[in-house]
Amino acid sequence: MRMYDIIKNKRNGKKLSKEEIDFFIYGVTHGIIPDYQTSALLMAIVCNGMDSEETLSLTMAIANSGDTVDLSKINGIKADKHSTGGVGDKTTLIVAPIVASFGVKVAKMSGRGLGHTGGTIDKLEAIDGYRTSLSDKEFIDITNKVGCSIIGQSSNLAPADKKLYALRDVTATVDCLPLIVSSIMGKKLAIGADVIVLDVKCGSGAFMKDWEDTVSMAEAMVAVGMGAGKKTTAFITNMDVPLGNSIGNSLEVIEAVETLRGNGRDDLTEVCVALSAEMLFLANLGTHNECLNMVKRALQDGSAYNKFVEIVEAHGGNVALIKDTSLFKKAKYCKQIIAKRDGYMLSMDTERLGVCSLLLGAGRIKKEDDIDYTAGIILNKKTGDYVTSGDILAEFYANDEHLFDEAEIEFNNAITY
Amino acid sequence: MRMYDIIKNKRNGKKLSKEEIDFFIYGVTHGIIPDYQTSALLMAIVCNGMDSEETLSLTMAIANSGDTVDLSKINGIKADKHSTGGVGDKTTLIVAPIVASFGVKVAKMSGRGLGHTGGTIDKLEAIDGYRTSLSDKEFIDITNKVGCSIIGQSSNLAPADKKLYALRDVTATVDCLPLIVSSIMGKKLAIGADVIVLDVKCGSGAFMKDWEDTVSMAEAMVAVGMGAGKKTTAFITNMDVPLGNSIGNSLEVIEAVETLRGNGRDDLTEVCVALSAEMLFLANLGTHNECLNMVKRALQDGSAYNKFVEIVEAHGGNVALIKDTSLFKKAKYCKQIIAKRDGYMLSMDTERLGVCSLLLGAGRIKKEDDIDYTAGIILNKKTGDYVTSGDILAEFYANDEHLFDEAEIEFNNAITY
Repeated sequence: MRMYDIIKNKRNGKKLSKEEIDFFIYGVTHGIIPDYQTSALLMAIVCNGMDSEETLSLTMAIANSGDTVDLSKINGIKADKHSTGGVGDKTTLIVAPIVASFGVKVAKMSGRGLGHTGGTIDKLEAIDGYRTSLSDKEFIDITNKVGCSIIGQSSNLAPADKKLYALRDVTATVDCLPLIVSSIMGKKLAIGADVIVLDVKCGSGAFMKDWEDTVSMAEAMVAVGMGAGKKTTAFITNMDVPLGNSIGNSLEVIEAVETLRGNGRDDLTEVCVALSAEMLFLANLGTHNECLNMVKRALQDGSAYNKFVEIVEAHGGNVALIKDTSLFKKAKYCKQIIAKRDGYMLSMDTERLGVCSLLLGAGRIKKEDDIDYTAGIILNKKTGDYVTSGDILAEFYANDEHLFDEAEIEFNNAITY
Repeated sequence: MRMYDIIKNKRNGKKLSKEEIDFFIYGVTHGIIPDYQTSALLMAIVCNGMDSEETLSLTMAIANSGDTVDLSKINGIKADKHSTGGVGDKTTLIVAPIVASFGVKVAKMSGRGLGHTGGTIDKLEAIDGYRTSLSDKEFIDITNKVGCSIIGQSSNLAPADKKLYALRDVTATVDCLPLIVSSIMGKKLAIGADVIVLDVKCGSGAFMKDWEDTVSMAEAMVAVGMGAGKKTTAFITNMDVPLGNSIGNSLEVIEAVETLRGNGRDDLTEVCVALSAEMLFLANLGTHNECLNMVKRALQDGSAYNKFVEIVEAHGGNVALIKDTSLFKKAKYCKQIIAKRDGYMLSMDTERLGVCSLLLGAGRIKKEDDIDYTAGIILNKKTGDYVTSGDILAEFYANDEHLFDEAEIEFNNAITY
């Protein structure tokens, strides 16, 4: 088999066989195929597409390109969830303990934030002492013991995806359904959960801005999950406004804790209830309605909150912070953003709010950047609210006063009345 | 300007501006753009095409990427011709002296053969002493003095084309109209002739096998030539049979000399007359009919032949060989290929005959290979001829008897009755 012929076949619009795709991913992983051939094939895929069978083959090849996490030593049904990256999205911190509180196991590897989107691992690291890097054994032991472990991805998880992504990033081949789907699902399937619930974001703060594109992506991801023998469901959730009212790492942990105590904002609670109930349903814990009621109860009776405390404790995190969130370290400076006009808030450009939080120090532009866990934004007004001149629209938190001005410009540009 | 955005624009089917194309070719030429970005753009061009304006910009950028040959010191009108590569194609050796014999200047840079196709420079080098590598000054002086110089391409002629071709060759992006056209015409336009006649081959021995593709290519090449301010005409000529009856370097020189003496085969003579007459016509030497008659006369009255002798002499070639072609060094072995059946010869796969000649030692597989100037094939029967069992179909020439068997198999496979 020659890479040249594989490129030529896709260039001519032909369907690639599983063997061709395996050859390609093996060559990429082991540095056998030169980048110029890889990027030519990626562009041919962008232009001529891949059908569901090819997408599944590509996903499985990526999943198997490095370490795979064997969850067979975890008792019971293992459920996983994945959100496609949003702004202010702290759902994992809420969904995982809810689901685990019912005995469904959640052994989850999460990512870090990049650009305007945040990452679950950064949020967990805002909890003093929380260890996001564990051995496979610790990961499995904690999941068996407390029902849930959430850690960072091992460096050799789906290495083909890392190499492909690095090339896609510089050759304008990121924005392509089969490549996006195989990248996300390849990492997901390298970890062997039985049940996968996908939370596909749509809107101004999401990777996918357009409803139809988002539906296609959700469908393709479910097809791949099912093709790989996993029970898979996708929800499409709104990212035209940030989820909840906090953006920024420790601020989001605090909001997650409030939500686990049953005091969350409706929009955030609703998404978390839906995702959690679906995970329980796929794990055969009851009908849809029964699962919904179980989840709501767990948020009221403290069992979800207690499970989160257990999880944090098992990972070495300082539980005192969870029990009294006022103990979280605060940013040195806070600035209130005041409304200068009256009117209904028509829309918020959520990506811009993500950038705003980034400007305050809460995110990273490059992978190597440090982040400020205390920085971020608390939103007092969201889309649909009536605003009177002089109202506090938001509070900015940062450890450097000079960051406020640029962030405020970005914030005001994000809002239309 | 960023290469990323240029790739993205072409990926999205947008038209590239002259500035974007210049930026790309400058970057390729100077090694600034990494190969993986170049190959991604090439594939996007293959998939989404380029219009005539983009193709012209790309061609001019390639033409200007290295040395350009300034022909302004040559007196009179400068005419150039280009054939798109064929088997047994010795037209340049015939057309150039015909045209020069009328005072139209032919300052021509030609290529070497590769794979199944031959190259004019290899054929000239079969003439003992002929220097195909001259300084610009010698090149111009000879053209001024005898009316014609034919030499090899300078190593820095259109260097962007060399780099692009090397990548296209390994990324399945060769077969794409704007890329082919800009490659051929870029090299052509780096040499400043006023008049260009293109001989675009179509058929089993040509790069283009299909009539409609060939017409599209011819039209695109003429559009680029005209766009660059050159008088340009294209002929589409048949490459379903080899031109003339010889394939191989010194064998083809001998046939060219015979044709210049007015004793050529009809098919070869006809193509050469048409191309030469068009060059004279574009150089304003008369009407189409007048030019055709002038050319025919030059083949009869010895003026074309005499001009070829002058050209060879001016380049240091041994004129005695031209005056008596029996003096050309012969291959050590000759094998007659005998017909084993009766019937009309329906077709010859000309590419296979080219490969057959290559197997006898007349061509090169890799650029670095040496070639045997004496090796090749004389065809006694061609498509349309009636063949009786026992007839001599062809004579093979080689300096190693062991080469005959494989070549004969290839030869027999090339023919259908």
